[in-house]
Formats: sequence, C-alpha cells, structure tokens
Amino acid sequence: MNDTPPGHALRGDLFSESCPSREVLKHVTSRWGVLLLVALGDGAQRFGELRRKVGGISEKMLAQTLVWLEQDGFVLRIAHPVAPPRVEYRLTPLGEEVSRRLKDLALWIEENLGAMLAARRPPSHALQGS
Amino acid sequence: MNDTPPGHALRGDLFSESCPSREVLKHVTSRWGVLLLVALGDGAQRFGELRRKVGGISEKMLAQTLVWLEQDGFVLRIAHPVAPPRVEYRLTPLGEEVSRRLKDLALWIEENLGAMLAARRPPSHALQGS
Repeated sequence: MNDTPPGHALRGDLFSESCPSREVLKHVTSRWGVLLLVALGDGAQRFGELRRKVGGISEKMLAQTLVWLEQDGFVLRIAHPVAPPRVEYRLTPLGEEVSRRLKDLALWIEENLGAMLAARRPPSHALQGS
Repeated sequence: MNDTPPGHALRGDLFSESCPSREVLKHVTSRWGVLLLVALGDGAQRFGELRRKVGGISEKMLAQTLVWLEQDGFVLRIAHPVAPPRVEYRLTPLGEEVSRRLKDLALWIEENLGAMLAARRPPSHALQGS
C-alpha cells in the first residue's frame, strides 16, 4: 500500500465470512463479471459489442453485471452527447488492475485446457469428508 | 506452451459459449473454489483445517467443492494408511499454478478493499442497455 491515500489502507480478509471483500470477490469472479472485465481490458466498448463478444450472455445479465461492476468502481458508463445517443463502457484505473489479474487467470485456463481435460478423472471417493 | 506434452496443446476460448474452459472457469471462480485453492496454496491440509480456515463454508459445500477440484485435476486427496485414518488434501502442480493466480487476485482485492469501498456508488442509470 504505497501511494494509496490514507483511509484507503483498510485491508480485507477473504477468509472471514463477514468481510465486505467477499462481496467484491463475488462480483469479480461471477461468470459474466470475469468475462466482461477481461473483454473490457481491450478498451472501451458499447453494449452491443460486449453482447456479441461474450458468447451466451443475455441482455439482462449483461446490463445487470455492468451495473454491479459500475457500483464496485470498476467500470464507467460514458454517455456521449451525440445523436443518436452513444454509450460506452470502459474500465476505471481500479478496473484495469483487476482486469489484468483476471486476464492472467483466463489466459492460463485457455492455454492449459488440454492439460486439464487430460487430468480430469472421477474422484477417488464419494462425497465425504474425513 | 513450452514443456507440455503434445496433445495438451488444445487451446480454450472463454468467450465461446460451448468451450469446456467455461466449466473450468466456473469451478475455479466459484465462491468456495477460489478460497479453497488459495487456502491450499499454504500446503496440504485436512478437511477440518480447511473448514476452520474458510469462514462460512458448510461441510457439504467443502466436500462438494473438493470433489470438483479433484475432478478438474487441481487437488489430490491423500489417505494416509494410519490408524486413526488421516486424509489430507493438497494441490497438484496444475493446482499450484491456478492457486498462484487466484492468490494474486485475492491479495489484490484484500489490499484494495478500502479503495473499492470508497469508489462504490449508485449506478448512473437504472437497469438498461443502450
């Protein structure tokens, strides 16, 4: 925590059930949250562009997830004052940082899919602890 | 893809709805999947240790998530032949790699929680696209 202003130095604990960082993790790692944050890493995009890029997302989930990401301070909605109206979504500096980390994870999964499918196997036991 | 055996070079595409990488992403970024993979980054642990470390996880969800992670090839269940039986869970080399990336994300969220809470605001618009 070097150049963060005082008051921003609050530290979260994801292992703690009541920590608000859990809510951030939930949005950031939600199915569509990950993919939208990665997609926006390529630059500002319109609603329709995001919809086409992220296969399988519904208009409703796209709109909902963009609202969550906006509330978390990761995404800006920019309405350009032109006719016809043009709205773009882009990452904030905070969003850029989280996007970079998610992209690293996403690329790793994409590149190692073959190894993971090869490693896939039935579990050695039924559903039980020890 | 340097030292992966041939046949493992299959590349996923997370933006494609039908790509099996989506299933891996789902397990890896599930609420408990993230936290368990991060927790196991500290070394092999028993069921009860994981249960205590990851606040709020139920026995059922812990058992279920461990099975998913085992099926994906990220976690090994090791039953030591002792009395009383002792079972440990530890990361595979593939699990170590994904755990490292998730830990990077988790640490970033924990360290930047203050900035995120400060950035949090109501969305600039109701639920709508453009």
